[in-house]
Amino acid sequence: MNDAMNAVTRWAACIEYDGTAYHGWQSQPHAASVQDTLETALSRVADRPIRVVCSGRTDTGVHAQGQIVHFDTDADRRARSWLLGTNRYLPDDIAPQWFVPVPETFHARFQATARSYRYWLTDREAPSALWRNRAWHVHHRLDHEAMAAGAVHLLGRDDFSAFRAAGCQAKSPVRDVQQISVIREGDWLRLDIRANAFLHHMVRNIVGTLAVIGRGEADPAWTARLLAGRDRRRAGMTAPAAGLSLRHVSYPPDTDLPGPAVGPAGW
Amino acid sequence: MNDAMNAVTRWAACIEYDGTAYHGWQSQPHAASVQDTLETALSRVADRPIRVVCSGRTDTGVHAQGQIVHFDTDADRRARSWLLGTNRYLPDDIAPQWFVPVPETFHARFQATARSYRYWLTDREAPSALWRNRAWHVHHRLDHEAMAAGAVHLLGRDDFSAFRAAGCQAKSPVRDVQQISVIREGDWLRLDIRANAFLHHMVRNIVGTLAVIGRGEADPAWTARLLAGRDRRRAGMTAPAAGLSLRHVSYPPDTDLPGPAVGPAGW
Repeated sequence: MNDAMNAVTRWAACIEYDGTAYHGWQSQPHAASVQDTLETALSRVADRPIRVVCSGRTDTGVHAQGQIVHFDTDADRRARSWLLGTNRYLPDDIAPQWFVPVPETFHARFQATARSYRYWLTDREAPSALWRNRAWHVHHRLDHEAMAAGAVHLLGRDDFSAFRAAGCQAKSPVRDVQQISVIREGDWLRLDIRANAFLHHMVRNIVGTLAVIGRGEADPAWTARLLAGRDRRRAGMTAPAAGLSLRHVSYPPDTDLPGPAVGPAGW
Repeated sequence: MNDAMNAVTRWAACIEYDGTAYHGWQSQPHAASVQDTLETALSRVADRPIRVVCSGRTDTGVHAQGQIVHFDTDADRRARSWLLGTNRYLPDDIAPQWFVPVPETFHARFQATARSYRYWLTDREAPSALWRNRAWHVHHRLDHEAMAAGAVHLLGRDDFSAFRAAGCQAKSPVRDVQQISVIREGDWLRLDIRANAFLHHMVRNIVGTLAVIGRGEADPAWTARLLAGRDRRRAGMTAPAAGLSLRHVSYPPDTDLPGPAVGPAGW
């Protein structure tokens, strides 16, 4: 193998991770990040430095089943070698699911047409030991039907300034929420939301706001009023990171990528 | 409150735990056990030493949604005080789900009529980051129908010496398997088994044996031949602890206890 003779190939990969131990996706000078940890493993497999571009950064403690990255390299490796090699070198809380060669026009971030996030809450009296890093425990029963009714007002293209973190660097506060649902499974609530893109803390601020409605402290139409008011100070708290995961990233139909790493029962 | 005047009450409690960080249920002189950790928290709430009796010990790394314990104390506490107090003092990988006063004739171990365990495997190519401590990752696709067919031979009252750990201290190797199933959910296999009681490593040895059948290295009737042979050396390997959890313990119909701490989608 003479790597020096190889053309550069662009690869796409799907990364599942448990964000509990990481200071988010993005490289950090003095803290462990998913990106740095992944790049170290990729560089080891490639035997040369590799930098990745992701579909969207996740915050400290946020998880992913379907984070998508791309990277360029002239290292001549098969998809299976990337998969087995990175999974061997990575800690077991980061697990690449597939690697595929893509056209050089593919871009994990700029070509993404939608992102799907899921948020888990449990509203029984006692916390869950097994889900302690995967769900938000609220001590009082929530009215999930009121929350679902409140969520519906967030559908469509709108200015989401009311649900935007103070430090958000996006140029525009306009986002297009294409799907949102709140479903109860026993003592668990599952919020699914898909949008073209998200502002910083947008999902967690929506969840915190819907929880206020679920407690009966506001009516479902409050979300519509908040949207119209565009004032972050009036919405609910930012829900904890642990409940959130990036489930799936969508690309144009001609981008033929495998699916994300869902768990049992579509979890 | 004058605790010295109180009669002794027997309490039953349901304990959920993530066994990853513990050297099993049972008290250990030089290692963290679930029992020791729980007793420390209970004793703190009671302000006097408390010892618990469990329905059945779990091994290092094995989890529980429905471990049942009982204990006796003259400390005058309400159920809610036990629940909130222990959950406050315990690390978040152990979470009591309920406490109820029971007749002094109740015994968590001797009165249990059946135990239900669940075992998760994933047989996709890449491991799961989020389920790394909750499922056994096998690298090759398993034939779950063959495994289910092999499992059926284990139903009923029989001598399970072939699936018994070398150090098992049970007096009799006879156990009554009342229910067993192997179900696929996408890239995940779920084994559910209920028996009056289990020999040491019995579930994990059954899973290891069914995995051999799932790989096509033995036919489903192999389990019947192993049972008849009563020779542990001929069965499959002991499957990893991480996939296993104690889901539910059954008591006689007149014992009116709340249910276990199941997760979303009955997980």
